[in-house]
Amino acid sequence: MKFKAEINVMPLRTLLDPQGKAVTGSMKNIGLAEIHNVRIGKHISLEIDASNKEAAQKKTEEACKKLLANPIMEFFEITLEESK
Amino acid sequence: MKFKAEINVMPLRTLLDPQGKAVTGSMKNIGLAEIHNVRIGKHISLEIDASNKEAAQKKTEEACKKLLANPIMEFFEITLEESK
Repeated sequence: MKFKAEINVMPLRTLLDPQGKAVTGSMKNIGLAEIHNVRIGKHISLEIDASNKEAAQKKTEEACKKLLANPIMEFFEITLEESK
Repeated sequence: MKFKAEINVMPLRTLLDPQGKAVTGSMKNIGLAEIHNVRIGKHISLEIDASNKEAAQKKTEEACKKLLANPIMEFFEITLEESK
């Protein structure tokens, strides 16, 4: 079976996000002062071959822990679905 | 009213994604060859003050077009909800 995973890797909420802070500042300069609290992370989409959804979830978590996210600075969220 | 937007900015599907390609290659090296077709973009969360959902959507699209995404290389998806 084939699965498609959508992963968000974001800076931990307790940490400063300097890139997000800079973008929040820029919003004011382009006339969008109503926008605030910008946080910027990564969005990753990938495909997995696995025998079932649990196995696919496990593989995806392993990929996040080993390669895609840095747990000291980031957390990740996974959305998994079977792809047609 | 306060709204929260979750935005994905991804490389256009018709373009190569060298960062994603590199990560796909690394998956094999860490024993996750079942994972392929990795694509990497940005995930942005932000808060907006607006009088209604339509206004918030419009502001968010403006921010994406003016600042967050490069339309020549990227497309964006917005998910908007009222924040409590």
